[in-house]
Amino acid sequence: MIDLTLLGCGGGMPTPNRYLSSLLINYKGRKILIDCGEGTQVSMKIANTGFKAIDIICITHIHGDHIIGLPGLLGTIGNSGRTEPVIIIGPHGIKEAVEGLMTIAKYLPYEVRVIESPKEDLNFIDEDIKISTLELDHSSPCIGYSFYFSRSPKFDVEKALENNVPKYLWNKLQKSNEEIIENGITYSRSLVMGEDRKGIKLSFITDTRPIETISKFIDNSDLLVSEGTYGDDLDEKKAIKNKHMTFREAATLAKSASVKTMVLTHFGTAMAEPKDFLDNATEVFENTIIGEDRMTFELKFED
Amino acid sequence: MIDLTLLGCGGGMPTPNRYLSSLLINYKGRKILIDCGEGTQVSMKIANTGFKAIDIICITHIHGDHIIGLPGLLGTIGNSGRTEPVIIIGPHGIKEAVEGLMTIAKYLPYEVRVIESPKEDLNFIDEDIKISTLELDHSSPCIGYSFYFSRSPKFDVEKALENNVPKYLWNKLQKSNEEIIENGITYSRSLVMGEDRKGIKLSFITDTRPIETISKFIDNSDLLVSEGTYGDDLDEKKAIKNKHMTFREAATLAKSASVKTMVLTHFGTAMAEPKDFLDNATEVFENTIIGEDRMTFELKFED
Repeated sequence: MIDLTLLGCGGGMPTPNRYLSSLLINYKGRKILIDCGEGTQVSMKIANTGFKAIDIICITHIHGDHIIGLPGLLGTIGNSGRTEPVIIIGPHGIKEAVEGLMTIAKYLPYEVRVIESPKEDLNFIDEDIKISTLELDHSSPCIGYSFYFSRSPKFDVEKALENNVPKYLWNKLQKSNEEIIENGITYSRSLVMGEDRKGIKLSFITDTRPIETISKFIDNSDLLVSEGTYGDDLDEKKAIKNKHMTFREAATLAKSASVKTMVLTHFGTAMAEPKDFLDNATEVFENTIIGEDRMTFELKFED
Repeated sequence: MIDLTLLGCGGGMPTPNRYLSSLLINYKGRKILIDCGEGTQVSMKIANTGFKAIDIICITHIHGDHIIGLPGLLGTIGNSGRTEPVIIIGPHGIKEAVEGLMTIAKYLPYEVRVIESPKEDLNFIDEDIKISTLELDHSSPCIGYSFYFSRSPKFDVEKALENNVPKYLWNKLQKSNEEIIENGITYSRSLVMGEDRKGIKLSFITDTRPIETISKFIDNSDLLVSEGTYGDDLDEKKAIKNKHMTFREAATLAKSASVKTMVLTHFGTAMAEPKDFLDNATEVFENTIIGEDRMTFELKFED
């Protein structure tokens, strides 16, 4: 099971009523934070998420509303007693930005490792988590994130018996990918394990225009967290100019990619009540949720 | 008249219930901000102070809770339409810190001028405002601030008549410091103006131990805004170790300097209710106020 906390839903600048867009992923006690604007650590405090277990911080792009909270959060993580490294992933420029921001947070009790603009999928911390990135279309280099939480197949007793695998090898084969040679016969994991089981896919897309490449990237996501800077269809021109999306554009993406559920976030400061514009999304993609600060979600593996 | 807004009263890290210690001075529509931790711009938004008129930002020291809000605020000032320069004053290291933080706020529509560790009193923006600084005793270079708002003397009709100043020169002499020579006689401003009038002195002291030099620096302040990180007298050892002050120590400073009123701020995160410790200050210095977020003060010139 994956627990998600939407720490904030605002875009542009921090406001009294809405924290800046940020998502916290909790999987087996390990935490991944996506974006960290000014005040994100306060929202974490309200949500009582803790700080010490943050292993990875994914930054979409280097605009203040997505990154200014970083030096304060890094300090607070340090104060929480963490000594293991923290990995920061971000687009082109993230190394310079982190270095700049850390001018005021120089002495941390742990190492900060920065991965700039990864060209391949990342598979670390936990081998069950694969992180993919996609270049988006914003006014500065920006990347979308997709997380795939894979699930091991079950042990299949019948298959093991059919394949004549000696019982004393079952446990060993289940727990390791290494082949075992016994009496000249090679035994591999596939001889005892069942079918692959479906994992969970989570995608996070902000800030961007709805470019073609996104659909394939977020394809079949169990949950898509997408920016919806403008609720009103009439603001499409603003969305085009400022390289953002309207609710309807985000919904069109969600539909094209057959995602299960979409949560809208990153609402513009001018939009007091995003729910007033929900219809603009649901007319296109019914399973749309208007995000709220500290809304939580549970994503469960099937069966 | 000088309007003050205590934007926050917290120290250490931003919390859900208390913004970080920061003070906004408004004098004749010009604004001076002292310290800018994470979220200061949100407190300004709540207090509806506006952003465009901020001429000077005084930073006491380069710890996150006093400076992390700077890049976000500079961006918001830019979005407010300001094109005039903004001056940032701070201790040793402020240039490097501002440069680092501005890695993520590179393109502002106005110039940022940084004054590092000023050795003399500063007298700019408005000639009536004199800014003095004092080196404090904290775990990183830290400076206290004192502001003197001077007041012009009144025009003195009797004195002008006594000094036989021709009436047609009165207005000119009142408005300028230049001498005027008429028929071989030199007329100066002092021939028509009354006694100097008392100005207003405001001091801001955080974070520091109560070192001797502070008393003279804050001497006769109309208002002293002082850190009070620890309310409980029993926390004096922590105060010594962490280079802060208890309420009682701040009150002792206020008394020794004969200030009129002291407002305590920069309360440690562990102190839920600073008012519980007010007696520890008032036993020493009666006119102590426990600061609260967005508390406002009016300082009026005498007479």
